[in-house]
Amino acid sequence: MGHCLELGGQHTEKQHFTLMVACAEICRTSAHFMLIGSEYHQHISGECAEICNECADDCERFGDMQECVEACRRCAESCRKMEA
Amino acid sequence: MGHCLELGGQHTEKQHFTLMVACAEICRTSAHFMLIGSEYHQHISGECAEICNECADDCERFGDMQECVEACRRCAESCRKMEA
Amino acid sequence: MGHCLELGGQHTEKQHFTLMVACAEICRTSAHFMLIGSEYHQHISGECAEICNECADDCERFGDMQECVEACRRCAESCRKMEA
Amino acid sequence: MGHCLELGGQHTEKQHFTLMVACAEICRTSAHFMLIGSEYHQHISGECAEICNECADDCERFGDMQECVEACRRCAESCRKMEA
Repeated sequence: MGHCLELGGQHTEKQHFTLMVACAEICRTSAHFMLIGSEYHQHISGECAEICNECADDCERFGDMQECVEACRRCAESCRKMEA
Repeated sequence: MGHCLELGGQHTEKQHFTLMVACAEICRTSAHFMLIGSEYHQHISGECAEICNECADDCERFGDMQECVEACRRCAESCRKMEA
Repeated sequence: MGHCLELGGQHTEKQHFTLMVACAEICRTSAHFMLIGSEYHQHISGECAEICNECADDCERFGDMQECVEACRRCAESCRKMEA
Repeated sequence: MGHCLELGGQHTEKQHFTLMVACAEICRTSAHFMLIGSEYHQHISGECAEICNECADDCERFGDMQECVEACRRCAESCRKMEA
């Protein structure tokens, strides 16, 4: 988030930034569901994977955000495993 | 939560208490998704409605928890409207 | 947050935006501490009041953000009462 | 938390359990303040260290919770370093 705020421009455009904040939030919720051992964690992991993947796609279209893209893809993959 | 911890017994049994904590968490996340204006809020509202309803069912089987049951049902209903 | 992202410019400058996100976070935590009935809620309310007030000051220097300024001041005041 | 709910008895007594939930919450908030790069993270780390230490003390009086005690102490120590 700090990185995007420093870069500005398209990195702080509403749709992109909202997606990033949503991604951070669902990751946090998803980790919490695992921690408390809720049987709903699979649902939440599924949502998390979907949002992480969309976040990766969105970072990808900016070109030089490879680190972010890969972090999101790895996270989505972990979530898919959790969901299974 | 405080109420359940005071009552103890079945109110702190693992399955029930975990469901309650999961319910509080997803409500918070759901509110956050609405606040930030994420297009994923409908998905999260759907999860929220489902968990709130299960929480209401679970409180119902204890008998004298009508206030909790109703709060959960109202919340589930609001979430269903958001989801639509 | 959506409002700031739409306005852009100084509204998304890093220092300001980070302060706003911190403010939203501490408000959420503070509400959670009250909800769970933690004896630490007074500490957290104190932090919340301080951050809300700084957020109000920061919104004030932009000129046309009176609604935000007032919301932050009201929140800081409530927190001060909780803290007492 | 799951561990406490399984053990029951004193592990789910209100004061202890509330302290544990408060501890989990402030750790999460503290991590978020670091992540977003807020200048308030030092305040929050200070609160976090205090709550973690009280949580460690409280787990200690139960006798056989050495793993929890150590995790809380380590966390408090990290927070103290952050706070400095």
